[in-house]
Amino acid sequence: MKAEIIAIGTELLLGRIINTNTAYLGRKLAELGIDLYYQTTVGDNPERLIESIKRSLVRSDIIILTGGLGPTVDDITVETVKAIAGRREIKWIANKVGTAPGLIIEETGKALICLPGPPREMEPMFEKEIVPYLKKRFGLSSILKTRVIRTTGLAEIRVNGIVKGLLTLKPPTTVGIYARLGEVDLVIMSKAKNDRQAAKAIGPIEKKIQSRLKDHIFGFDGETLESAVGKALRKKKKTLAIAESCTGGLISDRITDVSGSSDYFLAGLVTYSNRSKENLLAVSKSALQRYGAVSRQAAAQMASGAKRLIKADIGLAVTGIAGPKGGTKAKPVGLVFIAFVDGKKKIVKRFRFKGSRQEIKFQSSQAALDMIRRNI
Amino acid sequence: MKAEIIAIGTELLLGRIINTNTAYLGRKLAELGIDLYYQTTVGDNPERLIESIKRSLVRSDIIILTGGLGPTVDDITVETVKAIAGRREIKWIANKVGTAPGLIIEETGKALICLPGPPREMEPMFEKEIVPYLKKRFGLSSILKTRVIRTTGLAEIRVNGIVKGLLTLKPPTTVGIYARLGEVDLVIMSKAKNDRQAAKAIGPIEKKIQSRLKDHIFGFDGETLESAVGKALRKKKKTLAIAESCTGGLISDRITDVSGSSDYFLAGLVTYSNRSKENLLAVSKSALQRYGAVSRQAAAQMASGAKRLIKADIGLAVTGIAGPKGGTKAKPVGLVFIAFVDGKKKIVKRFRFKGSRQEIKFQSSQAALDMIRRNI
Repeated sequence: MKAEIIAIGTELLLGRIINTNTAYLGRKLAELGIDLYYQTTVGDNPERLIESIKRSLVRSDIIILTGGLGPTVDDITVETVKAIAGRREIKWIANKVGTAPGLIIEETGKALICLPGPPREMEPMFEKEIVPYLKKRFGLSSILKTRVIRTTGLAEIRVNGIVKGLLTLKPPTTVGIYARLGEVDLVIMSKAKNDRQAAKAIGPIEKKIQSRLKDHIFGFDGETLESAVGKALRKKKKTLAIAESCTGGLISDRITDVSGSSDYFLAGLVTYSNRSKENLLAVSKSALQRYGAVSRQAAAQMASGAKRLIKADIGLAVTGIAGPKGGTKAKPVGLVFIAFVDGKKKIVKRFRFKGSRQEIKFQSSQAALDMIRRNI
Repeated sequence: MKAEIIAIGTELLLGRIINTNTAYLGRKLAELGIDLYYQTTVGDNPERLIESIKRSLVRSDIIILTGGLGPTVDDITVETVKAIAGRREIKWIANKVGTAPGLIIEETGKALICLPGPPREMEPMFEKEIVPYLKKRFGLSSILKTRVIRTTGLAEIRVNGIVKGLLTLKPPTTVGIYARLGEVDLVIMSKAKNDRQAAKAIGPIEKKIQSRLKDHIFGFDGETLESAVGKALRKKKKTLAIAESCTGGLISDRITDVSGSSDYFLAGLVTYSNRSKENLLAVSKSALQRYGAVSRQAAAQMASGAKRLIKADIGLAVTGIAGPKGGTKAKPVGLVFIAFVDGKKKIVKRFRFKGSRQEIKFQSSQAALDMIRRNI
């Protein structure tokens, strides 16, 4: 079964909007065992849309159009598709989130499916209406099961070396490696007849990866590092206080992205000025003068100060230089100290990150969350 | 001049990576006055890539390929393009950020350009090498100038009503409206011979929009709300302290995304627990008991507490229910109070946002930043 996506909208080609629908549909189609070979984007232009649809009908079985369904002049999808459909019946699909309905047109062995462009309308419509339709209409018998194993703390090249032999596995079960800033995912994919068969193929590989990567693994599938940290804090019944300087609130923000985080997260202090480090966290003036705000000593005192002030079980602190300005030869942009304290341990680590201001903030938050996870 | 983009990578079709290159290139090509009519994504499959390149050579003048340039087995671009090029000369382009070089192959009146997939390698290569190349090679004489006018605080439908007549302008100068969560952009685009001619066309329309939307406009082009707030604080020489509950650090995080924010941002307090609201910000136990932590009274006391504790000129506080759990009939998910205090004013506003936990956090941060901007 071959599928193809056509995204419609001049705003996509002008770069006003980033196309996230293709990635979503790509994942969902893969889970259904449907091959996606092409994705095309065209503007709000009937001729080029017709040309693209006609070509897709030659080479694919399932054609999914996204966008251009609205009521304005720019929205050309319905008229264009109607012209192509001729006398064929149109099956309308209700839109429970927005106003523009979707539609399906069937041809011998093929289906042309039009979905709204906004992801919050498109995704539930695909999930609730199109997935059952495709399963029934095309009698889909094979599935693609995916298991994502998520790691942090090791560079891609290191993870690659550790799992090397597994990356050359051939279908129906394969392992891929995908790196993002501060995270490396291993993705096991298995094409199988059903969930049970897929689980049987994935299980042993997953175990092998776990035994090799051990505690570098923070979670699976959709789990985030912040939710893994939350789970660990909840399990150990520990409360957390955070003092942030260069991350500017990002760590607290990520921790509170997890619903229910108020159970373990008591407070965060974004002590951006030196005065606030002294007054709020009782970092000593002498340490700030002698070693500077970006130092092992300042980080340690910030963590202890936050723990004591908030009466939390764990205190975590980050101080560094996010850049692009403010770096010196001795303390360059990207230099970051992270401190962790609980009743027993006091750990301070030094990092040197690269990238833009936001990238340095993110990598610092990632290392800080990971430090909590590994030490409780 | 017609351009076309071909993105290469099975990981794009499987939805492991979101394609942001097309949006970037779309914007840049538009600025050069080059029309982008098609964007195609294909997997790491030589036949389908050849098919796509051959079609693009028929219908477009400039073909930009992204991805698949690396050294691994999956990276098929160079071999495929070499096969198509035959005896034609290949012009290699150095990659100053990563390892894989880009390349250009020329045919009568046409150019096939291969760029690396990772945006941080692709973008500088396009900017520094390809833009000058395209200008010279194709003698580009018309440009597309864009002016983005950014607003917050009004819903899209309201902005639409206010600028209505302008949205139907015909080329060479047009106005578009683009809404994102918590923000509505108006985009004036003018195709012209040079910058001066474009500025002359854009100027009067920009003035008209400004006179109608007034202080709902927070900035222009790449300016963010947080940088606009920073600019205003710096101009008025005011310092800021923030107390956050439901936004969990997001406002501080956004403010500190701006380089140099340490000049005006002193500290943020993420008082997630009631105890931290009492102990750190001196919110009265009686107010918390009588009105609850999500109340007009708590917000006001949090803002005053932060201002006093941090000795800042301005105190800002947010308290609310980000959900998805924790809502009641009287205090539903999405209910948010935001308070602003300075030496003279004390303002508390009530909001009711909709969406996911992250969406409610973001909209709250947006309203809070906007409240600072409008009141200093």
